[in-house]
Amino acid sequence: MNEALTNYLDNHRRTIQVELTKYIHELSIPEQLKESMLYSIDAGGKRLRPILLFASYETYASDFSKVLSSAVALEMIHTYSLIHDDLPAMDNDDFRRGMPTNHKAFDEATAILAGDALLTYSFEIISNDSNLEAEQKVELIKMLANTSGPSGMVGGQILDMQAELNPVSLEELENIHALKTGELVRFAVYAGAYLGNASKDKLQALNDFAYYLGLIFQVQDDILDVTGDSAKIGKSVGSDENNQKSTFPKLLGLDGAIEQKNNYVKKAKNALILADAENSYLMMLTDHFSQRDH
Amino acid sequence: MNEALTNYLDNHRRTIQVELTKYIHELSIPEQLKESMLYSIDAGGKRLRPILLFASYETYASDFSKVLSSAVALEMIHTYSLIHDDLPAMDNDDFRRGMPTNHKAFDEATAILAGDALLTYSFEIISNDSNLEAEQKVELIKMLANTSGPSGMVGGQILDMQAELNPVSLEELENIHALKTGELVRFAVYAGAYLGNASKDKLQALNDFAYYLGLIFQVQDDILDVTGDSAKIGKSVGSDENNQKSTFPKLLGLDGAIEQKNNYVKKAKNALILADAENSYLMMLTDHFSQRDH
Repeated sequence: MNEALTNYLDNHRRTIQVELTKYIHELSIPEQLKESMLYSIDAGGKRLRPILLFASYETYASDFSKVLSSAVALEMIHTYSLIHDDLPAMDNDDFRRGMPTNHKAFDEATAILAGDALLTYSFEIISNDSNLEAEQKVELIKMLANTSGPSGMVGGQILDMQAELNPVSLEELENIHALKTGELVRFAVYAGAYLGNASKDKLQALNDFAYYLGLIFQVQDDILDVTGDSAKIGKSVGSDENNQKSTFPKLLGLDGAIEQKNNYVKKAKNALILADAENSYLMMLTDHFSQRDH
Repeated sequence: MNEALTNYLDNHRRTIQVELTKYIHELSIPEQLKESMLYSIDAGGKRLRPILLFASYETYASDFSKVLSSAVALEMIHTYSLIHDDLPAMDNDDFRRGMPTNHKAFDEATAILAGDALLTYSFEIISNDSNLEAEQKVELIKMLANTSGPSGMVGGQILDMQAELNPVSLEELENIHALKTGELVRFAVYAGAYLGNASKDKLQALNDFAYYLGLIFQVQDDILDVTGDSAKIGKSVGSDENNQKSTFPKLLGLDGAIEQKNNYVKKAKNALILADAENSYLMMLTDHFSQRDH
């Protein structure tokens, strides 16, 4: 990875970490709830969604104060979805990024409520942001609820569960991931460009970009599950192979999955060119996400 | 109950039922998710919160189109909280209102996601309401997230869980219920009066009213658990006595709890007088809630 990108990612990770922590610390709430929320927020992760939001914004504008609340809200919603996903009734994961999952570190009831709290608080944060106009808040909240709710991420999670029991086609697999992962990516890209006052045409091109980028995320996840280094990934490799779940490598073979990924990368970059974003960090991030090793 | 109030409740229940169903039916989402959301929405309930919102609005204004989205959002959030509350990791209830709970009718994963979906969708509904100004939407979303999130209902649920293990004082019990039940009541009363353009003074008086009304809800629940008819309540009576949970009758005795309730009723009515609402349905509803038998 080139040094400019490394610095870029590090800087933006620091920014989002400071903001996330600040917003949770300023809550006057029961200690156990706060600790549980902070535990999963601090568990880190790559902060890819907020970074994408920042990068999308920076393609068109520069006053960072406008995007912090959306970036925080987005990462909180991503974090809540991981907490609920890990629950025994869902994926039943004991570890995430090498640390006990929320319900293991606390208990299931607390984990459910910490997830509910992060989800709900995310909307309050945007509604309270004094750097935004009312119209902007409404647009962001509408988009965030739409992409994370039943028509978006939550719908994708239901389809993903069903797909564990019944093999799906490539088209169905793309649809699952477009909802489960892609919709929050779409929010990230949209929110940044919208707040940066990008034109309607550019927003439309970025919408296509986000669709392919979401699929790149997922196909690379599937590829890493076959070829990756478990120490880097923070979970065991090969877990997809041991269950019935449909993945890109299972449907297309490993080489086919890599080819498919390269296809998505091409389409994503074409969309970036249409959005006048060929020299933006979005371009670099596309390569970064498609080549990441964890 | 007098006939005017019966008609009032029936009419408003019909209105909210039609709106709730309409909003869920218009979603293009996986069938299983939609069925699970509808199942708990249709499980009925008394719709006390939306009715309260309507009554608060009608105290000051009359164009009903402005309050429907808030009433729907509020009932969806209440419904999500029941779905998550009933989960095995939380209260572990198999039945609610005489019907299998959501995770019994579907499965735990679906129930968790249906709850998440209802919660998220509620914010989308308000943000999409073309009858409201952007400023109004932001105010409602801020208040709804604040009253239902970590500083409100979810915080109350954590405290309530902790109180099952450790006896609490009357003051602590009031605080738990003010958060767990009272905050959504506060939203109902506030949203209605706010959209009805009530003055700041009146909003402040109604805030006090809502606080006591929330406590009336809960103390009456506790009293019914001791004295109620299980066929009417739809769950077994005496369940509070069989666990360690603190209740008003346990802390004060049954007579003491009834006296405490009458105290709250007096304070609630005084607040209504200050809000120029002594001839409103809010007054009748206060008596109705304090005397309900299920």
